[in-house]
Amino acid sequence: MSKSAWQLLGDYLKDTQLLGSIQSTLYWDQNTSMPMAGSTWRGEQLSLLAKQIHARQSCEKFESLIMEAKSELKYLQEKGNSESQLIKDRFRNIELLEQDLKRQKSLDPKLIVQLATAKSEGYMCWQEAKKNNDYKSFSPSLKKLIFLRKEQSNQLAEQRSCWETLAQPFEPNLTINRVSELFEPLKKRLPDLIHRAANICKTKRQRWDLPTADQEKLCKILLNDWSRDPAKTVIGKSPHPFSITLGPDDYRITTRIVKGQPLSCLLATAHEWGHSLYEQGLPSESHQWFAWPLGQATSMAVHESQSLFWENRIARSFSFAKSFWHHFENAGAPIHSGNDLWINLNTFTPGLNRVEADELSYGLHIMIRTELEIDLLEKGLPVEDLPIEWNRRYLHLLGVSPKNDTEGCLQDVHWSEGMFGYFPSYLLGHLISAQLTHTLEKDLGSIEKIIESHKTSTILYWLRKNVHHYGRSLDSEELVQEVTGKKLSPNYFLEYLDNKVEKLSRISG
Amino acid sequence: MSKSAWQLLGDYLKDTQLLGSIQSTLYWDQNTSMPMAGSTWRGEQLSLLAKQIHARQSCEKFESLIMEAKSELKYLQEKGNSESQLIKDRFRNIELLEQDLKRQKSLDPKLIVQLATAKSEGYMCWQEAKKNNDYKSFSPSLKKLIFLRKEQSNQLAEQRSCWETLAQPFEPNLTINRVSELFEPLKKRLPDLIHRAANICKTKRQRWDLPTADQEKLCKILLNDWSRDPAKTVIGKSPHPFSITLGPDDYRITTRIVKGQPLSCLLATAHEWGHSLYEQGLPSESHQWFAWPLGQATSMAVHESQSLFWENRIARSFSFAKSFWHHFENAGAPIHSGNDLWINLNTFTPGLNRVEADELSYGLHIMIRTELEIDLLEKGLPVEDLPIEWNRRYLHLLGVSPKNDTEGCLQDVHWSEGMFGYFPSYLLGHLISAQLTHTLEKDLGSIEKIIESHKTSTILYWLRKNVHHYGRSLDSEELVQEVTGKKLSPNYFLEYLDNKVEKLSRISG
Repeated sequence: MSKSAWQLLGDYLKDTQLLGSIQSTLYWDQNTSMPMAGSTWRGEQLSLLAKQIHARQSCEKFESLIMEAKSELKYLQEKGNSESQLIKDRFRNIELLEQDLKRQKSLDPKLIVQLATAKSEGYMCWQEAKKNNDYKSFSPSLKKLIFLRKEQSNQLAEQRSCWETLAQPFEPNLTINRVSELFEPLKKRLPDLIHRAANICKTKRQRWDLPTADQEKLCKILLNDWSRDPAKTVIGKSPHPFSITLGPDDYRITTRIVKGQPLSCLLATAHEWGHSLYEQGLPSESHQWFAWPLGQATSMAVHESQSLFWENRIARSFSFAKSFWHHFENAGAPIHSGNDLWINLNTFTPGLNRVEADELSYGLHIMIRTELEIDLLEKGLPVEDLPIEWNRRYLHLLGVSPKNDTEGCLQDVHWSEGMFGYFPSYLLGHLISAQLTHTLEKDLGSIEKIIESHKTSTILYWLRKNVHHYGRSLDSEELVQEVTGKKLSPNYFLEYLDNKVEKLSRISG
Repeated sequence: MSKSAWQLLGDYLKDTQLLGSIQSTLYWDQNTSMPMAGSTWRGEQLSLLAKQIHARQSCEKFESLIMEAKSELKYLQEKGNSESQLIKDRFRNIELLEQDLKRQKSLDPKLIVQLATAKSEGYMCWQEAKKNNDYKSFSPSLKKLIFLRKEQSNQLAEQRSCWETLAQPFEPNLTINRVSELFEPLKKRLPDLIHRAANICKTKRQRWDLPTADQEKLCKILLNDWSRDPAKTVIGKSPHPFSITLGPDDYRITTRIVKGQPLSCLLATAHEWGHSLYEQGLPSESHQWFAWPLGQATSMAVHESQSLFWENRIARSFSFAKSFWHHFENAGAPIHSGNDLWINLNTFTPGLNRVEADELSYGLHIMIRTELEIDLLEKGLPVEDLPIEWNRRYLHLLGVSPKNDTEGCLQDVHWSEGMFGYFPSYLLGHLISAQLTHTLEKDLGSIEKIIESHKTSTILYWLRKNVHHYGRSLDSEELVQEVTGKKLSPNYFLEYLDNKVEKLSRISG
């Protein structure tokens, strides 16, 4: 029996997905095993695959496979199946495939090569500049990347501003207006919360640490409690923790040990596991589905909402501390109660570093970056003025000043690779996590009580049923509306932070 | 400037090599990190790559690239460069490429698919059969594999017998006559040596073990002494130790911990490191060269000669034991002298298992397999009679009888994947190692003295200069003739074993 147009398209997508997952495997290996000197050859392997994948995603064959599948689908619809969910899902798949194809096709291949070169040069230049605290040596690269990314946005010619166009791959349908609508209330209220928390946290804490083997053991206990299936998941180590999916039954995360920060490994594990649980919950029953858009994560903000949920709403909760502190005591840590662990898990000190920032100040780090990249791309902020503007805003919003550009505007990797429009996802993730949690608690009761009765699997089940399975069928705002019945708002996040500072003041007091 | 035909062929080979090295990376990951459930998708990734590679290696484009490069080369030769080594090397490259292409092209694509299926079914069936000690359930798979491999040999239509044809990819130019010429003297003399050694080793040895972390530390010390560059090499763990090259600057080996066998990890490390040193010594100065036949290992026997050299001639030497024993004592092992360690490293007891066999009995395990596979492929030995024949020969040559087929003819994986003609390489490796060592000692003096004065780097330098750099420019026998000035002979190996048994008797006595 000959295959339907839909099946043929599926076969095609699956081979693309296989190649993509091979790319991911090389990336995993590069970050967990590869010896340093292997990087040149690895680069060549990756660019060979990238070429193959780009060709597959932009060629005429692919276009006609999509067109044929669409005609077939219309025919099925006309035959009277128009109301079935399956047909709707298929149309949504086609819509997303067409959108992605249009983007791939509208770019001049020359620009793609120029961008790839500028990214890799920018990244290398940034590494040196950061090491030597030499922003000037990096600014030509940044200028070039901004120029090329503007050109990319021109070629894409969407009904959006430049920054918005570049943000689409991370956050479909995001606009600058919506960003400021969501972030302004935070900008107003976070500084006050930070101030209150800083006053509570002033008492000096005991410094302690744990051996690597003990930290790893604690992570294992954590994930065993959190529905880990060792037949499908691997925990590795890498300098920067990440989560990656290498196949429909192959989920990996990494964590790291940071000297002097005995909770860093556990929290990174919780965070990356949250990412992984989202991927594990995406519709991937069959290999084929795994390759369709509807089987993929909908946005980086939703992804981040899931990692932040498990890190902040579960692992940093009071009930978790109450049920987990004895593992720390057993390992020899100076932790002798739930209070001890909870206070250690929730320290609030505004600093210069985004990655190390706490829940209260994190948002301000993001806002500074988001505003600056919009200024750079759309409002003519000269690249030379970036350090001054960076430092000015840090002093104004967080009350701290970087000693140098290395701990200032050179700290993040994103811009060195021309990645603009990504930063807001981190903060949107906090907002989405808070709003979803609000609904989860309406459905299941207090999250603290659920954790106390060791029923995190109920929480996971709720997330799978209500959040994960949508894949790309809904964008982030649609998803939030669908799950919570309300438009996305910063209030839930602010309320959560307010309660936390309140509780901290009670317990520390 | 437009590229020469030679460069174009090189570019083509390099992309094939990139794909091959991606395949190897997936294989590495599969054996060191992949979660169990990942295997189905991994299989699909690997077969996608295999299809791509096969297409590249058998297509008309490749054929014409070779032809054009050959014409260009002939033109250069006629212009008067016929005597240069470079031109000779290039002709050798072309000759090998043509040979490989001819083999790829002469096979019916249908047969390739049938073989791939039969191999994977055979492997799965063998795993079950071995577990359940059920040879009967495996014999139909074996019959099918023999049938298909015979068909493959027919299609290849070389001027060689069936077994010889199948042995070519492992051991170019090997013949059955040559195998028996080399193995017969061993068959005569090994049983007597085994008997002598068994009488010496009768005193009961103390049982001991070491924790994993200590064994890993000892391996690190070993490789630091043996010229390891951590920027280019990685040591992993896997159930079956192996060595693999993932790029011109990316060499990996694995080792394993075996409970109750505290020397197994060290010796496996030494063995795999020997394989890796050979690969590291192949001509790979540039990425491009890495992709040409002359940059590749010439045969499995030569490969094995290098691993066996580092395992047996270095790590099992008396001087090594004298210089290394204190590391064992420091780790808490009941080893208090060089003698102690040396005796522990050199125990001789004939057994049923090839992988665990000592240097004396190893050859007999190989001969039994080699004769049996020739009988199966060429002399009409019925598959049903394999167990009886296997057991008869073990009793006759080694004086031991398997309790069942699991520890008998089902012990090795090779035949389950239709891999015939591979086994002799293991034993040829012993012979080559011994003969090369003989010449090395003529050049550099006694190997024991070199090790005693901590100059293993001199040995490595000699191997690089005299053995490794030839790649596929010489086959194994040509290589031995070139390096030692003599035809390959079993006498060096026999003499070495004779001396070892003699020394053991002195030291144990």
